[in-house]
Amino acid sequence: MRIAQIAPLWVPVPPITHGGTEYIVSLLTEELIKRGHDVTLFASGDSRTSGKLVSTCPKAIWRDRTLEDPHACILHLIKKAIQSAHEFDIIHNHLGFYFAPFAQELKIPVVHTLHRPLYPETHRLYQETRNVHFVAISRDQAASAAPLAIEKVIYHGIRIDQYPFSAQSKGYMLFLSKIDEEKGIIEAIEAARIAKQKLIIAGNIVGKEGHEFFIRRVKPRLDGKNVVYAGQADFNKKIELLSGADALLFPIRRREPFGIVMIEALMCGTPVLAFKEGSVPEIIEDGKTGFLARSTIHMAHLVAKIPEINRNTCRKVAEERFSLGRMVDEYEQLYRDILTHRI
Amino acid sequence: MRIAQIAPLWVPVPPITHGGTEYIVSLLTEELIKRGHDVTLFASGDSRTSGKLVSTCPKAIWRDRTLEDPHACILHLIKKAIQSAHEFDIIHNHLGFYFAPFAQELKIPVVHTLHRPLYPETHRLYQETRNVHFVAISRDQAASAAPLAIEKVIYHGIRIDQYPFSAQSKGYMLFLSKIDEEKGIIEAIEAARIAKQKLIIAGNIVGKEGHEFFIRRVKPRLDGKNVVYAGQADFNKKIELLSGADALLFPIRRREPFGIVMIEALMCGTPVLAFKEGSVPEIIEDGKTGFLARSTIHMAHLVAKIPEINRNTCRKVAEERFSLGRMVDEYEQLYRDILTHRI
Repeated sequence: MRIAQIAPLWVPVPPITHGGTEYIVSLLTEELIKRGHDVTLFASGDSRTSGKLVSTCPKAIWRDRTLEDPHACILHLIKKAIQSAHEFDIIHNHLGFYFAPFAQELKIPVVHTLHRPLYPETHRLYQETRNVHFVAISRDQAASAAPLAIEKVIYHGIRIDQYPFSAQSKGYMLFLSKIDEEKGIIEAIEAARIAKQKLIIAGNIVGKEGHEFFIRRVKPRLDGKNVVYAGQADFNKKIELLSGADALLFPIRRREPFGIVMIEALMCGTPVLAFKEGSVPEIIEDGKTGFLARSTIHMAHLVAKIPEINRNTCRKVAEERFSLGRMVDEYEQLYRDILTHRI
Repeated sequence: MRIAQIAPLWVPVPPITHGGTEYIVSLLTEELIKRGHDVTLFASGDSRTSGKLVSTCPKAIWRDRTLEDPHACILHLIKKAIQSAHEFDIIHNHLGFYFAPFAQELKIPVVHTLHRPLYPETHRLYQETRNVHFVAISRDQAASAAPLAIEKVIYHGIRIDQYPFSAQSKGYMLFLSKIDEEKGIIEAIEAARIAKQKLIIAGNIVGKEGHEFFIRRVKPRLDGKNVVYAGQADFNKKIELLSGADALLFPIRRREPFGIVMIEALMCGTPVLAFKEGSVPEIIEDGKTGFLARSTIHMAHLVAKIPEINRNTCRKVAEERFSLGRMVDEYEQLYRDILTHRI
């Protein structure tokens, strides 16, 4: 198939530090190419792909401080995609609502993966959008999208070979995410403190607001011994931290549509203690691959039960349910079904 | 003619405090209706028009803190405009680059007024845009847009009857603009101080960055006597301040595409001391309706020459060159020329 993948322009594909959507777009693109498809990636100029790259800005928007009208790059990218639409069998949009109004005018089908939570204003736009096959990344996200018609739920998947299994952990809890109130960093610190466990925090601090949040709310809680900030983690550092953790703490405070870090933990054999928000109960099986907490104190109490979780089971579940192969199988099948008018 | 006017969504049409583009869109829309045209205004839900209003958000984006995806409202508005395009003879876009990629697919002509400075990323997009008749708001802006083909230069115009002429000023300089480094507020204060003149400052402070700028750079320079901050001005306050000023100080630090406040000052009979940037020399005739300064010190020296300017002349020039009637004549003629394929 001749496939266009349209990525967001905020960070490169694949991302350098944070960027879950761009990570998935990269994995999907490269695997589709490996399977013999002709894939064109529409993304920032500092993206890398073994397929064709089409770009409208030399650097991803968040890496280029010279841009005054960053959204012009986005609209320009969409323009390029529309103009070359006849060269493709299918367009797969990951750029969110920016592309939606254009889909209708195209003569080829558009798959649109909903990567982010759906806000009311976005929802209103999507409900008037035609010629788009919407994919949700969890059943909970699909439910939140009602009455929008969701074609399929496809869970994210990651490369099994990139995540070595670790049978033995090293005696600490891990918080691994952007340092952000919504991600539950304060709750993670409090849960670890109450449970008298060491907590390692890794993740990047984004923007002025992020820095202010870190200085005012997080830094005063660090002691360099039991609560440690390890900076932002590149891929190797992330694997090292995940492999060594007794558990990943994921006290997410929003209706999380997926949460890639949970499946990365499971792939390393690391159980997850998470708040029961959004997609979390679909990804973490309570008592099998981790525990679902109702509150910070509940999470602290659940720490004592971590040894009940078998790390081999975590790995096995991740391989079965969250592999890249399975994800790409599902997208390939969806493209095929659409093109043969089965759906 | 059946005309669609597409406004930006950031502030209402007409604006409440700042918003030059939205002010012009409102004036143009209402005058076209008065002349018998059938005008539909695409704008935020809190906009007012005697024509039809189409909206996708109840409030302008800057007035609605609940929006997480404000750009979805913009894309939605564009979608609505495209879908109803067959109901119009012509679309006039003031929303900037967001609409550009869509113009090509339309069967009706699109006029696009460039309201803002052209940044490289926007320029790249416009150069690939077809089916758009670009209007520049000054000759300097048209020059800055090269090699983009500009159909016409149309200066902004305002309602003569809304600006009473003031033959006599009250002995102060005025700075009237968003409180912003680029607008030259620091230069205005320094020029007034060197010239030993009272300066009244009026204008709004926008966002966190604006507040920080005000607190750190402007507030320490206020003394409540010779340098006074009068807060943000509504329309009546603005007229009062302009009418009483010996001169408007306009030490703009960017390549200003137009600068509506200059023609508002002239309409009240108030001369303008301005930096010679962008469109300024096209609007202010040196020695006739004000003076063009090369630097802050030069501006301070020119203050002594203000009595040489005849306030009647300022008013007369404004009536001749910058009236709403003249602006709407020009846009009407442009629409007509396009529709009869004369251009």
